[in-house]
Amino acid sequence: MRLLHLLLISIITIPCYAQNHETTIRAVFDEALENGDSYSMLEDLCLNIGHRLSGSPQAALAVEWSKRKMIDYGFDTVFLQPVMVPHWIRGKEEKAKILNAKTIGSKEVNVIALGNSIGTGENGITGKLLEIKEISDLEKIGKKNIEGKIVYFSRPFDQKHIRTFKAYGGAVDQRVFGPSEAAKYGAIGVVVRSMSSIQDDVPHTGTLRYKEEYPKIPAVAISTNDGDLLSKLLIDDKDLDFYFETHCEMLPDVLSHNVIGEIKGTEKPNEYIIVGGHLDSWDVGHGAHDDGAGCVQSIEALRIIKSLEIKPKHSIRAVMFMNEENGLRGGIKYAELALENNEKHVAAIESDAGGFSPKGFSYSGTESQIEKLNSYKNYFEPYYMFNFSSPGGGADIGALKNQGAAVIGLSPDSQRYFDLHHTTSDTFDKVNKRELELGAAAMASLIYLIDNEGF
Amino acid sequence: MRLLHLLLISIITIPCYAQNHETTIRAVFDEALENGDSYSMLEDLCLNIGHRLSGSPQAALAVEWSKRKMIDYGFDTVFLQPVMVPHWIRGKEEKAKILNAKTIGSKEVNVIALGNSIGTGENGITGKLLEIKEISDLEKIGKKNIEGKIVYFSRPFDQKHIRTFKAYGGAVDQRVFGPSEAAKYGAIGVVVRSMSSIQDDVPHTGTLRYKEEYPKIPAVAISTNDGDLLSKLLIDDKDLDFYFETHCEMLPDVLSHNVIGEIKGTEKPNEYIIVGGHLDSWDVGHGAHDDGAGCVQSIEALRIIKSLEIKPKHSIRAVMFMNEENGLRGGIKYAELALENNEKHVAAIESDAGGFSPKGFSYSGTESQIEKLNSYKNYFEPYYMFNFSSPGGGADIGALKNQGAAVIGLSPDSQRYFDLHHTTSDTFDKVNKRELELGAAAMASLIYLIDNEGF
Repeated sequence: MRLLHLLLISIITIPCYAQNHETTIRAVFDEALENGDSYSMLEDLCLNIGHRLSGSPQAALAVEWSKRKMIDYGFDTVFLQPVMVPHWIRGKEEKAKILNAKTIGSKEVNVIALGNSIGTGENGITGKLLEIKEISDLEKIGKKNIEGKIVYFSRPFDQKHIRTFKAYGGAVDQRVFGPSEAAKYGAIGVVVRSMSSIQDDVPHTGTLRYKEEYPKIPAVAISTNDGDLLSKLLIDDKDLDFYFETHCEMLPDVLSHNVIGEIKGTEKPNEYIIVGGHLDSWDVGHGAHDDGAGCVQSIEALRIIKSLEIKPKHSIRAVMFMNEENGLRGGIKYAELALENNEKHVAAIESDAGGFSPKGFSYSGTESQIEKLNSYKNYFEPYYMFNFSSPGGGADIGALKNQGAAVIGLSPDSQRYFDLHHTTSDTFDKVNKRELELGAAAMASLIYLIDNEGF
Repeated sequence: MRLLHLLLISIITIPCYAQNHETTIRAVFDEALENGDSYSMLEDLCLNIGHRLSGSPQAALAVEWSKRKMIDYGFDTVFLQPVMVPHWIRGKEEKAKILNAKTIGSKEVNVIALGNSIGTGENGITGKLLEIKEISDLEKIGKKNIEGKIVYFSRPFDQKHIRTFKAYGGAVDQRVFGPSEAAKYGAIGVVVRSMSSIQDDVPHTGTLRYKEEYPKIPAVAISTNDGDLLSKLLIDDKDLDFYFETHCEMLPDVLSHNVIGEIKGTEKPNEYIIVGGHLDSWDVGHGAHDDGAGCVQSIEALRIIKSLEIKPKHSIRAVMFMNEENGLRGGIKYAELALENNEKHVAAIESDAGGFSPKGFSYSGTESQIEKLNSYKNYFEPYYMFNFSSPGGGADIGALKNQGAAVIGLSPDSQRYFDLHHTTSDTFDKVNKRELELGAAAMASLIYLIDNEGF
């Protein structure tokens, strides 16, 4: 009698669905941590293919590699989406020198050409440096004081931000827009302090955007150590010259592909929940955290769901987007085709903030989508993920928001990301196995919840 | 009229103390992130002194080093507490071999002597291996099957735990108690699978505790890769032998010191809030995360408070505890002297879980202390610290709980800690500057809150 009573109370008071969700999510994390494949996939991608800039032979290999992986895991469908991508090449290694400095004479410094930049040609360029903290200062300083000079944008990260992405967001205008803005006032070249959280000798590349109406001038990033040396020298040495030589060029667009693996939905096969990362990387390091991690976590999320024999109601896809770094063509193409093919996208999740310990998700969408996503928070607290916030999303999935999808970004711990971002240091050994696996499990769990609870 | 109305509402509705606390905590974090010294202190300790096992010359140097640092920062008082510590030395490098294996013949493997272990002598020991997962299995297997053998404790970390400290807690009995328990049944030596979250070739040392009633037998940890190889071979090769050679020995106790820096309280000078780490480390690597990080964060916490001209009501101390790793003598001595000198300890905070991104605090104490600490959580959420929980504390501060102090441990992200713990890999380059600084700021902020809000 007593037992029956207890059982009855249990049935009445414990919401059955919630208990099942918790059990399933626990199984997802167990699978990722005990039998996870994300780390060995990333090792393979990083060590056997390496970096893979859009249009490069390695990018083509990575397309084949991820297609093969997803076929081998037995996803229902694996297919490619053709997309034309920019084909920028770095050419010979960059060189740069401080010349005629009062105190130190001449000194080689560490620079790297910005992505999409034109090259200087064999002779390089030499000019006086004009140090500037804000793009808006160009207007005040005026064309006659800028013409013929090399503009040095030196505003550092604001270290007070706790999330390093905010510091990046507060400095990256210099890299993206600085070159064309300086060209507008007659500058012959641009040097940008690397977008970095730390002091070291490693320069960080990354994209610039030329405006068609101004001359294209060559641009490089300088390491934070060398950048700070420049600032120090320039205090009382207006005569020093700066030399740099880059051999990069933009070639005609080439054909590349998004790679998509799909598990067909049992109830709503034409409604999609997707998870993805970008397959391209900059042409230095391994592109391990940016964004090999996001790619293997996305494949792993589907592998986990399949291996646990969860049958999703919606179709779910792992999408390897091509060309996030210098064009976003893959993300745009994916959204175009989704519209064209009448594929209703319920939610799109992206991991493109590093393979570090996951702390939560950030998202954008309708009010009810956001409310629903907020309500999932409790399921993740046992996994030390507390940070559920809006707005958020991801570059590659941004265009799906207009089609009604909630766009969701995995939020890992951000402290180490900009030490490595777009550098030779973004290598496989910087990735921790368990951190990577926890991120994959978090994404698989979120797919599962959205599939079952919807918006 | 409208403005006045708004101002009045502000005055009425915003609790003034809370606003001040938030502003002060923000200033603490800004100071740590913009002008922080913890990282350069740790670099100095790691690269110029290095590892510093109790009783070693480096430990003596570290005592002088931390005293000098705190004097240079101008703390009101800096003093040493003499304490006798064990003096264990490793001697010549360990050697170990698999012998007579059916499939691979003989093979050198990576081992490291456990701390406090006796050595094997020049000839090493050779014996058949008995693989065991649980100490309790020894009783079932019985003396006649154990006598003369080397027991191999092979239970791995349970990777399903999200906090790696739980996995460590579930495996470390093998290392601490395994040797004496095996000796009880006549084993001649012990091999323990390294206490590690990852698969690699690096063995992890750490303390064992001999029971006086059983013979002391030599014990080593084997790397996870080599340990798993052993397990694989042993499945169908009961005849293989294992050889190992260690040259460690326990010498007579030597004099060492806790190092204490103090800022005198303005209102309750004989009531103390302390923050600390342990100055000793194992005799491999740099002891960077374990626990150089905790030491420099503790000094930094006081430096921040002083540099912001916060005048604490209670006396606050940064305590460098000696001998946490293989004796805990410093922690015990500190508590003894606190009692002897009638120093009322209000709270003791320890950082000894790595210098990674701080996620919160865990603590033990009276119900009202715990309630108060729980209530501080909101102040830390802007810094992405969400994890305030009980029980908790730290090894060195444990004895202060009996004297009425709340004992509090800083909880950093735990995923990477046991990759490095007690190994040659625990080096300065594994520490991230901002992660270290955030931990120091969190501890300074907590000191400030307890000083002002008490229990």
